[in-house]
Amino acid sequence: MTALTRTGPRIVRTIADVRAAVNEYRAAAGAGATVGLVPTMGYLHEGHASLMRRSASENGLTVLSVFVNPLQFGPNEDFDRYPRDEERDRAVAAEAGADVLFMPSVGEMYPRKPLTSVLVSEVTSRLCGASRPGHFDGVGTVVSKLFNIVGPDRAYFGMKDAQQVAVVTRMAEDLNVPVEIVPCPIVRDPDGLAMSSRNVYLTAEEREQALVLSRTLAQVPGWLADDAGLTSDLLKQRMEQLVRRMPLADIEYAEVLTYPDLLPPGEAPLREAAAKERLLVALAVRFGRTRLIDNILLTP
Amino acid sequence: MTALTRTGPRIVRTIADVRAAVNEYRAAAGAGATVGLVPTMGYLHEGHASLMRRSASENGLTVLSVFVNPLQFGPNEDFDRYPRDEERDRAVAAEAGADVLFMPSVGEMYPRKPLTSVLVSEVTSRLCGASRPGHFDGVGTVVSKLFNIVGPDRAYFGMKDAQQVAVVTRMAEDLNVPVEIVPCPIVRDPDGLAMSSRNVYLTAEEREQALVLSRTLAQVPGWLADDAGLTSDLLKQRMEQLVRRMPLADIEYAEVLTYPDLLPPGEAPLREAAAKERLLVALAVRFGRTRLIDNILLTP
Repeated sequence: MTALTRTGPRIVRTIADVRAAVNEYRAAAGAGATVGLVPTMGYLHEGHASLMRRSASENGLTVLSVFVNPLQFGPNEDFDRYPRDEERDRAVAAEAGADVLFMPSVGEMYPRKPLTSVLVSEVTSRLCGASRPGHFDGVGTVVSKLFNIVGPDRAYFGMKDAQQVAVVTRMAEDLNVPVEIVPCPIVRDPDGLAMSSRNVYLTAEEREQALVLSRTLAQVPGWLADDAGLTSDLLKQRMEQLVRRMPLADIEYAEVLTYPDLLPPGEAPLREAAAKERLLVALAVRFGRTRLIDNILLTP
Repeated sequence: MTALTRTGPRIVRTIADVRAAVNEYRAAAGAGATVGLVPTMGYLHEGHASLMRRSASENGLTVLSVFVNPLQFGPNEDFDRYPRDEERDRAVAAEAGADVLFMPSVGEMYPRKPLTSVLVSEVTSRLCGASRPGHFDGVGTVVSKLFNIVGPDRAYFGMKDAQQVAVVTRMAEDLNVPVEIVPCPIVRDPDGLAMSSRNVYLTAEEREQALVLSRTLAQVPGWLADDAGLTSDLLKQRMEQLVRRMPLADIEYAEVLTYPDLLPPGEAPLREAAAKERLLVALAVRFGRTRLIDNILLTP
């Protein structure tokens, strides 16, 4: 056995095996046992690694799940071509301190046609929920399954998918799932691009132009500080103007919503709303066939 | 303290308290701990008592929940007048061996408007699902909550609500809920009437005529044995004819479906289907404002 395999995560592919691994840990650790879950679709990058490191620092056992969930992809989306690389995932998971790597097949997760859906309304009606119908139904359902399979004390999600964090948090609260949802900061490349498994789709030219997302969002706090009359509509217009300067950019949405309820902040100048509650400023932009999202959260 | 209060169940009204009671038991009982849950809407009768006794015989701790769940009642149904009697429930629970009696308020279970629903398709499209739209959405959601709150190893449901058993079993399987669903036999009054909290609504005349449900169902095995050509449609007609002899009876459905998938068994003589798989023969009949259901399960 090399040092790497000894310190790397235990790979399990069945629900029974991941449950056995968690039960074994809980039996050994006793009353102080805590289990952290990091649910991912794999093709891991530094963003995922930051979730695992956070979980490893807060829990006795960290379970990483890698599952490209067909339920959360639309018929014309990229399920088939979504990047997968098990060797790379194992290496990233080992480096970041995951203890158990749960990599089920589609047949293991859905042995027959599922008839049960976990649906969250309202917080799913805007942003990605509007442009990807059914997406969050698939997310709510698979995250419910993972919670039931692993039984984590804490689950870690990246804020790049801010709406996903809002949906999962609300789902867990409404259904009394005994788990703490831990939102974690967006991790960016040195030039500012939010890390995403889908960045691998970008051509060099698209990647250069994609910097417009983070650069636009980075300006928002300044605009808000300088312009007492800035409304939600004016902010969206400014963002769209900046993004449109990139010839390859195709805007899906540029939005400002309250967080985590994801409601419009009203017609009044944004400073009033921003003084009272958190505001999510979010962008979704297509470059060719690649859909990128990014956001910042403004906190009073 | 009297003997009764000492041996009676511990009453808890909050989610935190029921979780504490279960955790306390699990910590004390160690590796062999098992928790049984009996979810009810209260106004307990001998049917509920049989579920508690079964749970008490199979688990170290039995939790009885009493909660009239507004989510599973339609706007024109009997939520407001559904019978409630806490003293009686406490006495029945004590006699039947429940250890913890969880009696939350509506505000405890739904502190704000729930946005999350647990929906089960297909098995909810017929029988009570067809006549009570939204009913099983409410059942799926509240049972999911109770499973997450109590974390039982086993949950006990009466077969009078055979479709509910099918829905909850499918939900638990689809979502990988780590619980065993235990279906328990229908308990009947000596004259055959299936026990139901709603029987209290019946007038003496209605109650007499309501015996037609169990008496009709009791004839089905004989009809099937005697008549090789009996089809699903013919069986339904025979049942309807018998029920219609009662002037106060208003038939909602008389059905024959495969169990637990609840699909029509086809046009062929029923004996063929009955030789291959279980068949549920089910009736729903209204007497005045009171809706009664009953069924038998034919097993190959």
